[in-house]
Amino acid sequence: MAASSFFYATFGLCVCLGIICVVFVSSWNSRWRGGFAWDGTESQFNWHPVLMVTGLLVLYGLAAVLYRIPCTWSQRKQPWKLLHAGLMLAALLLSIVGLSAAFDVHRSLNIPHMYSLHSWVGMCTVVTFACQWLLGLAGFLVPCSPLWFRAGLKPLHIWMGKVVLILGLASCISGINENLFFVLDGVSAEAYSLLPAEAQFANTLGVLIVAFGVVVFGILAKADWQRPNTDNEEAPLLLREEAI
Amino acid sequence: MAASSFFYATFGLCVCLGIICVVFVSSWNSRWRGGFAWDGTESQFNWHPVLMVTGLLVLYGLAAVLYRIPCTWSQRKQPWKLLHAGLMLAALLLSIVGLSAAFDVHRSLNIPHMYSLHSWVGMCTVVTFACQWLLGLAGFLVPCSPLWFRAGLKPLHIWMGKVVLILGLASCISGINENLFFVLDGVSAEAYSLLPAEAQFANTLGVLIVAFGVVVFGILAKADWQRPNTDNEEAPLLLREEAI
Repeated sequence: MAASSFFYATFGLCVCLGIICVVFVSSWNSRWRGGFAWDGTESQFNWHPVLMVTGLLVLYGLAAVLYRIPCTWSQRKQPWKLLHAGLMLAALLLSIVGLSAAFDVHRSLNIPHMYSLHSWVGMCTVVTFACQWLLGLAGFLVPCSPLWFRAGLKPLHIWMGKVVLILGLASCISGINENLFFVLDGVSAEAYSLLPAEAQFANTLGVLIVAFGVVVFGILAKADWQRPNTDNEEAPLLLREEAI
Repeated sequence: MAASSFFYATFGLCVCLGIICVVFVSSWNSRWRGGFAWDGTESQFNWHPVLMVTGLLVLYGLAAVLYRIPCTWSQRKQPWKLLHAGLMLAALLLSIVGLSAAFDVHRSLNIPHMYSLHSWVGMCTVVTFACQWLLGLAGFLVPCSPLWFRAGLKPLHIWMGKVVLILGLASCISGINENLFFVLDGVSAEAYSLLPAEAQFANTLGVLIVAFGVVVFGILAKADWQRPNTDNEEAPLLLREEAI
């Protein structure tokens, strides 16, 4: 009971931090960066950080810890598996729209694509995430997937899930840092090095993103908080589907 | 035997990637950034990326997976514990010297300290690492530390260890990205956006750093590769010391 309360307190903290991250990244781009549009200008670019933080980080992180909620353990796993896959798909789609926002603006303003380390790591993250989602679909949702494939895929799926989260975190931090150097150039806005209010706000967003990632990792790392394994490789397919 | 061969192949890959990262970061700063000195100029700043990648990432990552080496499991744990603590102390000291290189150059060239998100996350990383090392010393090396403290500290130590690695990765990626925007400014060197040879080389370093981190996480995540737990809370102190 105490362990369960500790889980819910940590999960609550995780949800709160996630919401605060989304509020912070939206407020930053709305208050200081001119708001949102889809017209090939900087206002379209503002969708990029908002959608990447919301999709690739917050929604992804919350979908990753979904199986850890103890009150779901007595229920059938299938609906939670579908919710996990659905949230992950939403996270992936938001990330892809977020990427296209950046690419569109680069095209429109004649800025070269994919030259910074941030863009290289970010692209690796989204491609790995897409592969992870497709492999998960093939292994755990398609009913006819062979047992050896599911059994071999499960540890890889768990490990790749953490890898995407780490890469997502590195991409978000390097992206916010890069963006602040671009926009707080001392000409169109006060220099970043003078740490104006916008810089303090966006740096705080970065720290909140790190805190969110660390709490998600804490939840994933605690063995007591893993859904009890009811895996039975010998059971008939319909029962087996409940297991993984 | 097959599992052990797989471990040694992965561990070998981890060591090779670590060495390549150190070679890449040193070559980048030596070939393109004017080499090394300790004189308050940009040449002193070049120690910063080299020491952070070497200490905070490579040495730290290798020290983190030390207990996973199967041929050490039949030996007493105490010498490996001392080696783990010693390598971590070396990693921490290299990171602190790496930080002072950057602070010294900022002071000498009148550049403000601690304004970028990279510097905020980097400082969080080193402070968390220092706390982790001191807590580890107090809990697992000081013989008189109470059992309840050791038992409670072990899961926190493992989790904080992974947190430092994730923060280190985010700090290194954002730092290399920031550095490339500063130095490849299109005036004193070809612009970053034109992706000159230096940019390709340093971006590749970033990808290698990510690959190293991902392999370290793979080793840490695999339950079969954990040193078998011989923890016995009721045993006398000398025996107990072997356990944690």
